[in-house]
Amino acid sequence: MKIIISPDSFKGSMTTMDAADQIEAGIRAVYPQAETWKIPMADGGEGTVDTLLALVGGEKIKHHVHDPCGRPITASYCWSEKSKTAIIETAAASGLTLVPESERVPERLTTYGTGQLIKHALDQGAAKIILGLGGSATVDGGAGCLQALGVKFFDGDNKELQGSGQMLATVERIEFADIDPRLHQVDFVIASDVKNPLLGDQGAVYVFGPQKGLQPSNLDEYENKMRSFADQVKQSTGRDERHQAGAGAAGGLGFGLMSFLPKLQVMSGFELIANLSHLEELMKQADLIITGEGKFDSQSYQGKVPVGISRMAMPYQVPVVVFTGKIEGNASNAQMEGIRMVIPIVDQAMTLDQAMVQGKPLLFRSVKRFFETIRLTKESFVG
Amino acid sequence: MKIIISPDSFKGSMTTMDAADQIEAGIRAVYPQAETWKIPMADGGEGTVDTLLALVGGEKIKHHVHDPCGRPITASYCWSEKSKTAIIETAAASGLTLVPESERVPERLTTYGTGQLIKHALDQGAAKIILGLGGSATVDGGAGCLQALGVKFFDGDNKELQGSGQMLATVERIEFADIDPRLHQVDFVIASDVKNPLLGDQGAVYVFGPQKGLQPSNLDEYENKMRSFADQVKQSTGRDERHQAGAGAAGGLGFGLMSFLPKLQVMSGFELIANLSHLEELMKQADLIITGEGKFDSQSYQGKVPVGISRMAMPYQVPVVVFTGKIEGNASNAQMEGIRMVIPIVDQAMTLDQAMVQGKPLLFRSVKRFFETIRLTKESFVG
Repeated sequence: MKIIISPDSFKGSMTTMDAADQIEAGIRAVYPQAETWKIPMADGGEGTVDTLLALVGGEKIKHHVHDPCGRPITASYCWSEKSKTAIIETAAASGLTLVPESERVPERLTTYGTGQLIKHALDQGAAKIILGLGGSATVDGGAGCLQALGVKFFDGDNKELQGSGQMLATVERIEFADIDPRLHQVDFVIASDVKNPLLGDQGAVYVFGPQKGLQPSNLDEYENKMRSFADQVKQSTGRDERHQAGAGAAGGLGFGLMSFLPKLQVMSGFELIANLSHLEELMKQADLIITGEGKFDSQSYQGKVPVGISRMAMPYQVPVVVFTGKIEGNASNAQMEGIRMVIPIVDQAMTLDQAMVQGKPLLFRSVKRFFETIRLTKESFVG
Repeated sequence: MKIIISPDSFKGSMTTMDAADQIEAGIRAVYPQAETWKIPMADGGEGTVDTLLALVGGEKIKHHVHDPCGRPITASYCWSEKSKTAIIETAAASGLTLVPESERVPERLTTYGTGQLIKHALDQGAAKIILGLGGSATVDGGAGCLQALGVKFFDGDNKELQGSGQMLATVERIEFADIDPRLHQVDFVIASDVKNPLLGDQGAVYVFGPQKGLQPSNLDEYENKMRSFADQVKQSTGRDERHQAGAGAAGGLGFGLMSFLPKLQVMSGFELIANLSHLEELMKQADLIITGEGKFDSQSYQGKVPVGISRMAMPYQVPVVVFTGKIEGNASNAQMEGIRMVIPIVDQAMTLDQAMVQGKPLLFRSVKRFFETIRLTKESFVG
């Protein structure tokens, strides 16, 4: 029996790795010889990078860079010498957790450090750079990062500006002839599950600004600065990426990179992991695919791992089974999405907190029961 | 697929009939053509009689009798003309619910009415009488019932006594030459899951007396009366049934009947239902047996339906699957008892009360999932 194990995290209970391990243990408890391919999925966030690291392999590389406030820190990223691939998290050098609450003033914060990490990866000879957006403290339209990569921003007095939130409205000229030439060669992949555009109601300022420390009374002014920056970029490059899905990720870092990087792909964490793990190829050989997530909400299929898995598996007619802590909404919708069964892991009356704490044994036991039923069927009802 | 459906009740949530119906519906939702044999089991109590009625068929017969206080009431029992079988509940004429709380004084209460129902069944031409013990208001050692059947009790002045708790200590002579002669012919079956002896710590007085209204301060005196009665019975009949399992059932009615009825069998509800339903014969043909109960406690196997079913099924190697609201203790003990799988019905975090209220849909859905897994296995992993 060949089984793909590809769950999302069970939020608040298990990481995607933990979930995959429990599922595998449940299978092995019944079929010790089963052939399993463990591909912990994730729809963004920390789990995504962990999975990418596991897929790509490699080592952590440390580098001295600037934090969002401009102070020196040591940040690390993952480097695979074999595949010449770097996996960089925006949060590593430009993350919200690096900034004390009292200093969360996006006007003063920069993504410069993320640009330094990218540059360091290029120095290593990177053929591929995967940059995970998400968790940033900044709303600088990517200006700091671009500056580190050779883009220059000037004000009306021809004075060069330091990338930050503050300077967005004062940029009057942009030079990018000196952008690092290696960016023309490298495969640059932005991993983002955030689909927001740069501006507007759903944009970087109004949606993500408040959680980064922007005051409600400042939002309109900040939005105007960002629009002014986008206009300048358009004037300089002739490109206008402000409406692209993901342009609003990481405080507009998505927009900045889309605007200046010649070879850029934007992928969801799901697409990226599926891609790196050759998931679709494995599906052609699998007998069964097991996925899962903390709460299976059949109403909102947007970006959900189980549904993504199921859609990918459909042409190959491999049954997809979802284990979940909670089924919400109409489960029959799941079948329309090609999901064969949705199986609850909770096994007796308990509070939600108890279920969260016991997530691992609950998942293990429910997977074990499922395979016990399969074994019972094979032994008793067939042939 | 041939499936035996034989659950216990899910106490506080579903009767044994309800449980069997939900299990059947869960099977049919996946395999509409499955051949199912529904034998709702019970380990005593109300569910037992309901199941017996369903198995034997027949009609309710009403008869005017005395209630435990000696007042006229109409009580009914079940009569199958085809099999000449009567099924009588002690609770029908001598039940606790017939006595207002203020009158629950066992000294004054009698099982006379139950004897009247037995007599009426004999008048109908009964070849078999099944008497379900349980639910009685009385602690009269069966004296009232025996009196209705022709046994006479006298005091030291040779005055005939009316059967009740009061008279137990004053009996000095017993005549049973005039006991209804038809009792020599009829198959008399006592259905009792209560294994208590007549006397002692585990006896009718100390264990069941308090819930029938005996005051703690009266228990020792009452126990002495009951012992005196047992001594008189022994002296008159030469038989001493006080230590028999079930002698203490229904306030000593078990003891009374065991002492005077020539042809008597004591069976548990389980044995009786298994017997009447030819359960063991069906097991030889079945592919699967589904049972269940509210709480599956692997520590205490005494008298539990799933374990009884499993032991009976063992020689025929039919897999037994238990659905339950709660698994307690070590489930691996269940496998030692031949139970193949124990499957929980609760499917998400909820309180015990919520699980009780939703017992029917929870059971239905868990059975449905089980058969969906069977179908998935047959379609995808086999052949």
